[in-house]
Order: sequence, then structure tokens, then C-alpha cells
Amino acid sequence: MLKTNDASALDIHALMLEMGRDARAAARPLALASTAQKDAALEAMADALVGDEARILAANAIDIANGEQNNLSAAFMDRLRLDPGRIRSMADGLRAIAALKDPVGDVIAAWERPNGLKIERVRTPLGVIGVIFESRPNVTADAGALCLKAGNAVILRGGSDSANSSAAIHACLARGLKSAGLPETTIQLVPVTDRAAVGEMLAGLDGAIDVIVPRGGKGLVGRVQAEARVPVFAHLEGICHLYIDRSADLDMARDIAVNAKMRRTGICGAAETLLIDRAAAETHLVPIMQALADAGCEIRADGAARAHFLAAQPASEEDWSTEYLDAIISVKLVDGIEAAIDHIETHSSHHTEAIVAEDAQAVERFFNEIDSAILLHNASTQFADGGEFGMGAEIGIATGKMHARGPVGVEQLTSFKYRVRGTGQIRP
Amino acid sequence: MLKTNDASALDIHALMLEMGRDARAAARPLALASTAQKDAALEAMADALVGDEARILAANAIDIANGEQNNLSAAFMDRLRLDPGRIRSMADGLRAIAALKDPVGDVIAAWERPNGLKIERVRTPLGVIGVIFESRPNVTADAGALCLKAGNAVILRGGSDSANSSAAIHACLARGLKSAGLPETTIQLVPVTDRAAVGEMLAGLDGAIDVIVPRGGKGLVGRVQAEARVPVFAHLEGICHLYIDRSADLDMARDIAVNAKMRRTGICGAAETLLIDRAAAETHLVPIMQALADAGCEIRADGAARAHFLAAQPASEEDWSTEYLDAIISVKLVDGIEAAIDHIETHSSHHTEAIVAEDAQAVERFFNEIDSAILLHNASTQFADGGEFGMGAEIGIATGKMHARGPVGVEQLTSFKYRVRGTGQIRP
Repeated sequence: MLKTNDASALDIHALMLEMGRDARAAARPLALASTAQKDAALEAMADALVGDEARILAANAIDIANGEQNNLSAAFMDRLRLDPGRIRSMADGLRAIAALKDPVGDVIAAWERPNGLKIERVRTPLGVIGVIFESRPNVTADAGALCLKAGNAVILRGGSDSANSSAAIHACLARGLKSAGLPETTIQLVPVTDRAAVGEMLAGLDGAIDVIVPRGGKGLVGRVQAEARVPVFAHLEGICHLYIDRSADLDMARDIAVNAKMRRTGICGAAETLLIDRAAAETHLVPIMQALADAGCEIRADGAARAHFLAAQPASEEDWSTEYLDAIISVKLVDGIEAAIDHIETHSSHHTEAIVAEDAQAVERFFNEIDSAILLHNASTQFADGGEFGMGAEIGIATGKMHARGPVGVEQLTSFKYRVRGTGQIRP
Repeated sequence: MLKTNDASALDIHALMLEMGRDARAAARPLALASTAQKDAALEAMADALVGDEARILAANAIDIANGEQNNLSAAFMDRLRLDPGRIRSMADGLRAIAALKDPVGDVIAAWERPNGLKIERVRTPLGVIGVIFESRPNVTADAGALCLKAGNAVILRGGSDSANSSAAIHACLARGLKSAGLPETTIQLVPVTDRAAVGEMLAGLDGAIDVIVPRGGKGLVGRVQAEARVPVFAHLEGICHLYIDRSADLDMARDIAVNAKMRRTGICGAAETLLIDRAAAETHLVPIMQALADAGCEIRADGAARAHFLAAQPASEEDWSTEYLDAIISVKLVDGIEAAIDHIETHSSHHTEAIVAEDAQAVERFFNEIDSAILLHNASTQFADGGEFGMGAEIGIATGKMHARGPVGVEQLTSFKYRVRGTGQIRP
């Protein structure tokens, strides 16, 4: 393993390929590691994080000072900043992952053939995961731990602005691995900040990387999706819709609308567009839009909706395809469930959509005809989250159709193989 | 839909993009089609194939005549040639797919959260499948039908040598779709033989293709895997191993070895390398190698194995990585289960491996430590087949780790989404 922070003289290509080989070499013993051994490593990592609090905060202080000098945005600085509470919750996160059920070895399906062959489909690790993230140094611990729990080696590539914080956290993970007798190369942090390292990972490191998970803004995810030569678990954006049917209970619709938009506006499961059934315009529109406005939300509405609520701004065509990630919502009147479905299928990013309705037929159409990863009935779009789904933790949310879709937890970080037990069967 | 066989004046790029849009447009109603409607289409297609026997044979005769003029190999001509029996078995294949369980709408998992949210994971079609195949015109029917059953639209691109046969078969599929009220563009056959059409499909047709399935030799699969910008379900080769442990029953080992290699030598599940435990060399090696030789198999062995069986040819290093697809097998003596696993993990294409053993511990190590799609105990590698697995039919066998692995049947041609039913829950 090469260890250096001096990229200048380094051949990045050779360094990255070596990291890939090290990860691949670690993946095999890791796939056979017992649950107890993996969990012991996770607990030891948590202890190390708490024990190293001073060292981690000192490293973070360097990143914060650099960030201030570089005039990084307040939001960016907030994501970057660590404090004792955030370090404790990172450690708690590791212990929570240790407490999750180990997916490796799970028999997903089993059946017997007429000739007596007994077939089992059993979960296996995926192999090597590449995680590319931006400002949040805690991703080092979260993503490393989730990959480990599913028996995968991982190569982490953090943002240059959080390099010192990530390195201090990574040192704790390495100590935890070592104390549990697992290869330290199970969780590697790319030691150079050169952007060429990202390109190398997207090319797959000579087949060493099985899947890439980008964690960050649309710029990062878009680049990864466009350039990666290996599968990617990600969503580019979460243009989530909330449809209020004519049959909706008004109080419920209002509470869900405010929660879906305003609970946290910066997360991918936040609603961006509100579709209201034209048949409910007289009864539901004003109370819901008033409640959103009272909560501090800017409303951009089509002409028909504005006629009912003059305080709204006019929506442009672009608004229907915009992920605001802010206290802004676009609102449109639609002619019932069919028009709602058409609008969503046209403009959605296939992440999460919700319907508020008492009419069971409208709900079934919504559930059947919309092809998004997560569909909700009478519940807030902000439940689009691995923890809320009971998966314990997630490495992200995927909107692709292959392998992993919706929240990506430990189970989604596995593959499978078939085990077939015979008694001498030959094929006729 | 453009309909032409005159590629000369055509903009292939525009043609293929239009086919992609047509497929995507067909995919939405198809995803909502009932099982009865899809099965009616499949039955009508089968009737049309039988009814069009004369027309299909006439089209095939043109391909055969062209093939003879082009001096195509005997094996190629055999794959190309249709007769009434082959047409009947194509029709029977469609009826068998109609009889399969419809995977779409299957609830794969369901659970309830403490807050009362009821979460279901339900199967959905993948969307649009691209199938690229070579000489066998029957793939037109098989692949088209499997994709349809799973609710997917499909774009088929056959080899130029079978173009007339494929077009005649495709006409029957289109009639079946029409008679069942499904869009004829559900199953499209690329109407030009220009190779640029393949490149367009591998680029994904502007996001219209969700997955590519290549059906053909290593040259085709290799090109597809190297160039595709969309996921691929395939195996490049099947370098399948059979390991005979010291604890193996000799008669069983001999029967399985002969079957695994010689039942059909040209299929991907045929064994290519035989590993024999050194501790069984005195007892098992000669009877097994003699049985293979008696069955007409050429044996290429390492020095230690040849010392026991002088009729064997010497194996070169290259033999351990060669898929013969012929009556040739490489044989090596290994120091027990650990050395067998090392050899397989080094040389396998991760398709299918089998162990013959009575020692349960050896079997468990084989099952746990080898990362191939299919592992068998005391059974022939030639069971690596969707039909033999009880899946009814397969579009191929995949060795990737993502989404589909092992036989790819209707279930593997689906994705999934989450349906969440609430009673007004908002996220705290």
C-alpha cells in the first residue's frame, strides 16, 4: 500500500490501480469474515472515534480554517464542521450498523427440482465499492461501515476540502479493522486530492471496482453517471411530487403538504411540485397554499391555481423540472388522477411521489402507473429514507432500475449465488 | 415506425433513435397489460408461427442459399437452418412462456413500520431490453416472448445471415401482438443489417434501452461488454470446473465427469477443467480419465496427472484459461479442497463449478469460498440452465454480480418499486 499525501511526484494511475488490487485482495478474506468479527471491528472503530475526538477536531480545525480562507459557502462549512456531538453520533452510527442483521449468507430463496436437486439462492458480498463524496467527512465512517457490514471492501474518495478530517476519521477505522484481525485495506481512503483519482475510479481500476456510489450534489452525481464505466447507485435529483386528489381529507392533505415540502427542504425526498385535482380547487387549494405560505414557502403556480391564490408567483415551464432544494414549491391544477400521472411520468426524476386520497381506485392507479422508486399513499414524501424504511442505515437512494432501487442499505450492497446440492444427478 | 430494408439512404442514427422512442412508448401500456392479454399475444404468436410455416421456410431457404454461397461453417449453417420440427418447437416455446407465472406485480417483500406505514416491494418491468444475436433465428421468438412476459418492450437485432428468417418470424410476433391489442412496437426487429445499428444500441438510444442482452459467441459478447454504455446481462465464457475430492464416490465422479464434459460440449455449462485431489490420484484418476477418453474426449493434463495416465497430452499454462467448447478437457492434480479453490478463483470465469465429495466440510468450503454464479455438489455442471433450474426458460446466463446472476429468466427481466401505505403520517 502506498502511503503519501504528496501527489506531485506520483503516478496517480499506478497508485489507484494498486489501491484497486489491495481492495480486491482484501475482499476475499472479508467475504468469509464472520459476523462477530465484522461487528467487533465496527465497535472498535466507534471506540477509536470517541477516543480520538481531540485529534479529529484538530484535523477538522485545519479544514475549517482553509475553508474560511477559500470563502466556502455557509452551507458547505456547516456540512464540513465537526463537534463532539457529531463525532459521538458518527460513533453511534457505527454501533447501529454493528447491530444490523448481517445479510451475507442469507438464503433468499430455496426450492427442489423433480430430479432431487436442491437449489438455494444465497446472498454474497458485491466485492469492492467505490464511494466518491464531497464535503461531509462523516461519510468516511458511515459509508465505510455499511460496506464492511455487507462484506465489501471499499475505496473512499473524499473532497479535498475535508481531506484532513476524513484522514483523521479513516485512521480510526483502520485501527478498528486491525484490532478485529481484518485487513486494514478493507477500507481505504484515497490519499491524494488530485481530481484524476476520481477519473481512475470511474474507469473501474482495471475491473477492481464493482459499483460506484457518489455522495454529493448534482454536479458530482452527473459527472459520475456520465463517465462511469462501472454500475452506479445514485439519484441525480429528487423531483418529488405530491398529488392531492379530490377525495383527499383536507387536514391530512395540508399537514402532509407542509411536511413534505418544509420539514427539511434540502433533502432529496422533499416535495418540489404540488399537483392539485381541479375538482378539489374550491375546497382544498387555498387552505393548503396558505399553510405552505405561512410556513415560509414561496409558491410558483400555474395560471389556474393562481386565480385561486393571488399571492402565488407565476410558474414557468422550467419550474416543473426543477429541484429547488429550498423553501419553494411549484403548484399546478390537474384534471384528476390521470392528468396527475401524466404530469409525473413526464417530469419526475423517478425518486419518490405521494398521493393523498381516500378513493382506493385513484390510489391503485397511482401505485400501478407511476414508475418511481418509492410511491406513498397518505404519507409524506420525506419518509423516502433507509432509516424510515427500517433498513437501519443507507448509503444513498437510487433511481436506476437495476439491482438497487430506492434506499440502498446493507442488503442492496450484496450480490448472490446459487448453491445446488445433488446426489449424483447427471443431465439427460 | 420506419419500415425499410434499404439502409443505403438511411440515417441509421435517426432510425435507431426512433425505434428507441417507439419502444419506450410501447413500454408504458405494456407495463400495465394484464397477464391474460400478454398470454393471449403469446398464444396468437405461436399459432401464427405454425400457420406461417411455409413462408418461414421459404425465407429461411434464402438465408441458407446465401450462407452456402458465403461458405459459412457447417456449425453456423446448422444453427441457421429451420425445419418444420424447429418451427413447432419455437411455437411450443412460446406456449411454455405463456404458461409461466407473470412476475409483474409480485409482492417480493412486505413489512410494517412502528409508525404504521405499510411498505411493499413489488416487481415491475425493467422497461426496454435490447437483444443482439447472431445466427439462430429462433432467438427472435424466444427472446421476444420472454421480454414480453416480463412486461418489457424489446428491440431485437439479429445477424445479417439470418435476416430473412428473423423477419418472417418477427412478422408472426407482430400479428400476435396486434391480435391481443398490444402495441406492435412491443417487439421490434432492427430492419437494417448495417453494423452501425449495434453501436447505436450499445450507446443506449438516448436512454431508451435499460439493458442489453447479447446472444452469441465470445466475439459478440466481448464487444458488447467493452462498448455498452448500458448494463449488460451476459457471460463472456464458461470456464467451468469440476473438482473430484478424495472423499468422492468413484462411480458418481466418473458419471458426472463424463456428463459434465461430453453430454454437449458446445454449451457454456460444459466442464472445461477437471481438478482431481492428489489424495485420490491412485484410486480415481485412471478410471475417470479412461471413461473420458472412451467417450472420445481429448485429455490435456499436467505432469503429475500424466504420470498416471500416459495417453494424455501435456497441458500448457494457456489450457487452464481456455474454454474449449469441444471434446477436450484439461486435467490437473491439486492438493485438496484449498488448492482446488485457489485454482478455480484464479482461472474461473465465475459461471459454474461443481464438486464431487462425500466430505461435508469440503463441500461447505467449496460453496462458501468460490464466488461463481452457480456452485453444484454431486451434480453435473450441465445443469447450469434456466429450464433445469425450474425457471421455465432463460434469455441467457449472466456472470456479473449486479441484478441478474446465473440463469436470466422472466423474474430477472424485472425491476421493482416500493409502495408505502399510510394514514396521514408525517415525518417528525
